[in-house]
Amino acid sequence: RRGEMAKSTQLIDNEVFRAYATYTAIVLLKMMLMSLVTAYFRMTRKAFANPEDTASFGKGESAKKYLRTDPDVERVRRGHLNDLENIVPFVGIGLLYALSGPELSTALLHFRIFTGARILHTFAYLIPLPQPGRGLSWAVGYSVTISMAYKVLKTAWLL
Amino acid sequence: RRGEMAKSTQLIDNEVFRAYATYTAIVLLKMMLMSLVTAYFRMTRKAFANPEDTASFGKGESAKKYLRTDPDVERVRRGHLNDLENIVPFVGIGLLYALSGPELSTALLHFRIFTGARILHTFAYLIPLPQPGRGLSWAVGYSVTISMAYKVLKTAWLL
Amino acid sequence: RRGEMAKSTQLIDNEVFRAYATYTAIVLLKMMLMSLVTAYFRMTRKAFANPEDTASFGKGESAKKYLRTDPDVERVRRGHLNDLENIVPFVGIGLLYALSGPELSTALLHFRIFTGARILHTFAYLIPLPQPGRGLSWAVGYSVTISMAYKVLKTAWLL
Repeated sequence: RRGEMAKSTQLIDNEVFRAYATYTAIVLLKMMLMSLVTAYFRMTRKAFANPEDTASFGKGESAKKYLRTDPDVERVRRGHLNDLENIVPFVGIGLLYALSGPELSTALLHFRIFTGARILHTFAYLIPLPQPGRGLSWAVGYSVTISMAYKVLKTAWLL
Repeated sequence: RRGEMAKSTQLIDNEVFRAYATYTAIVLLKMMLMSLVTAYFRMTRKAFANPEDTASFGKGESAKKYLRTDPDVERVRRGHLNDLENIVPFVGIGLLYALSGPELSTALLHFRIFTGARILHTFAYLIPLPQPGRGLSWAVGYSVTISMAYKVLKTAWLL
Repeated sequence: RRGEMAKSTQLIDNEVFRAYATYTAIVLLKMMLMSLVTAYFRMTRKAFANPEDTASFGKGESAKKYLRTDPDVERVRRGHLNDLENIVPFVGIGLLYALSGPELSTALLHFRIFTGARILHTFAYLIPLPQPGRGLSWAVGYSVTISMAYKVLKTAWLL
């Protein structure tokens, strides 16, 4: 029993891994928040994708008119997809990076900049901010992931 | 050789991690199944996205009419994207959760409810079931992931 | 300090895990490249999704005409989404597979074939190659992931 506990907690006892766990949970929760924002805009804009979602608005033609796209809903959905495209590489490469033995301070720098950049990206997308606000926040998060991938490949390289 | 073996299998010897591995493999396979369902509907509904996919139906205009969207295909694609949006956080947060030293019974409860909810969500989307069937199954899976994220942040917190 | 270091690097010292880290970094970087290809096509085809992205082309109607879909942009976006749908299961199941104690040669075979297949898939999508080029490269990557999932479930099974 004790042995198992030790095994299961050893990674989580490592400070770099704890930092990775904290920031990964934060960015994944932030990404999950996009589902709620989408639902909010779908309901306030009355713009749905599925006939069964509009049934509470009445039958037939009166409900059918809510089966439509709305610019605000589509904007949140693009933000959500951009999160998937960028946070998935962060989570995957970040795990390998955390296990590649970086200095805690360097690792924290990577995780903090990425997380900050993605939160900024969401605000830039949803407000929306004028370009290059969204573009720059995207590029910063992208560059952090590339930097971590470089460290992973340098440490682990076995083709 | 033996030392390496021990290293590589120690996580997989942990019961919580084995449960995580089992349920993660199951939900990812379920998500992958959506590709086959999409392909099935594209072929039976003759609705394709790429000109090269319709070449076997003839040349020019006769093939071009199959370059179209179909409600059934789009429905499966929405289900697939919803899987990505929800199963990615489960896989990432679930890994950290499994390493944060939860009780096996608590962990199993989380993994089982999430997996059941996502399988129900797929059926609710594809049949389709009247709302709030799909909405509730989505909310249950979402809540399980939030609960795991809370445990991860409580255990690992290092900002 | 030293103890922590040892903890953080023990997984990365395992050869199968190093191979997993290498190929996972490569396929995730390949997936990330799709963002740059999308940006390239959006700029050369002048086809954007957000009004704020077209502001540099002028005000009002003159900029509005660049808010449109373009077949080349949509093609890259479909390739990117297909990457997400297939590379996410590889990264998740591949990690569990790497921890399930496979032979190094068997693991390398899986990782190499998957990575080669996904690179081929991208070329088949972007050139585009006539079918079944893209279909086959997709099926090969899909089958490799199924094979790894089988090993994971056989080793870890705890429902």
